[in-house]
Amino acid sequence: MGPGDSAQLLKFDEQGLIPAVVQDWLDGTVLMVGYMNQEALNQTVATKTVHFWSRSRQKLWEKGETSGNKLHVKSLFVDCDLDTILVKAQPVGPTCHTGARACFFTSMDESGAVGVGKAGEAAGGILEAVLR
Amino acid sequence: MGPGDSAQLLKFDEQGLIPAVVQDWLDGTVLMVGYMNQEALNQTVATKTVHFWSRSRQKLWEKGETSGNKLHVKSLFVDCDLDTILVKAQPVGPTCHTGARACFFTSMDESGAVGVGKAGEAAGGILEAVLR
Repeated sequence: MGPGDSAQLLKFDEQGLIPAVVQDWLDGTVLMVGYMNQEALNQTVATKTVHFWSRSRQKLWEKGETSGNKLHVKSLFVDCDLDTILVKAQPVGPTCHTGARACFFTSMDESGAVGVGKAGEAAGGILEAVLR
Repeated sequence: MGPGDSAQLLKFDEQGLIPAVVQDWLDGTVLMVGYMNQEALNQTVATKTVHFWSRSRQKLWEKGETSGNKLHVKSLFVDCDLDTILVKAQPVGPTCHTGARACFFTSMDESGAVGVGKAGEAAGGILEAVLR
């Protein structure tokens, strides 16, 4: 069974995409969320580096193809209703295009406001609570 | 600034939704992914338990409102392009409707096939690699 067959079980959305959460396989940090189409999933499985479909550029891209900051696949999971992928990966360098280790570095405060000077790294493990 | 104002900064999609990854605040396990609209986000911030918009039932729901398996918010983050939310939460009981602790218990094998007897718990921390 090839990737093209098996992945028919997954529920892609009306644009043919499925969200993929990428998590550091060692410490559990959520590094980024991107979207895969069938081809991106096939390439991710075949090459063992994470590929996405860029919604803004409307093209397939390998994460890190320009920056070198690739994500090496350690394991792949799907959720109970088959509409979200979880990738456990070993990152090469920072994952975020800003140079941050992960993309989730902006915290929201108790009002739901974004980026009000309480930004913190959403690393794995125990964190101070921003909401108490 | 109330949640209604501040959240205008977030990029909701054409259906008015934004994906939210929920992660165990203590060990980093990715528990589930759901979708919030403005009202679900407001309720999540106001009550400090996770609320979603159900796409299948087309209604607001508090995670655990029936089962009791709620998700207590510890902190909220948004990603670098403001189109994904990360919730660090303290789960009450199992998060998945199947009774599993988390929804990502089905692994994909090297071909990309789903559920071929290699299912494993996608817990936080170090895991054996399913793909090598």
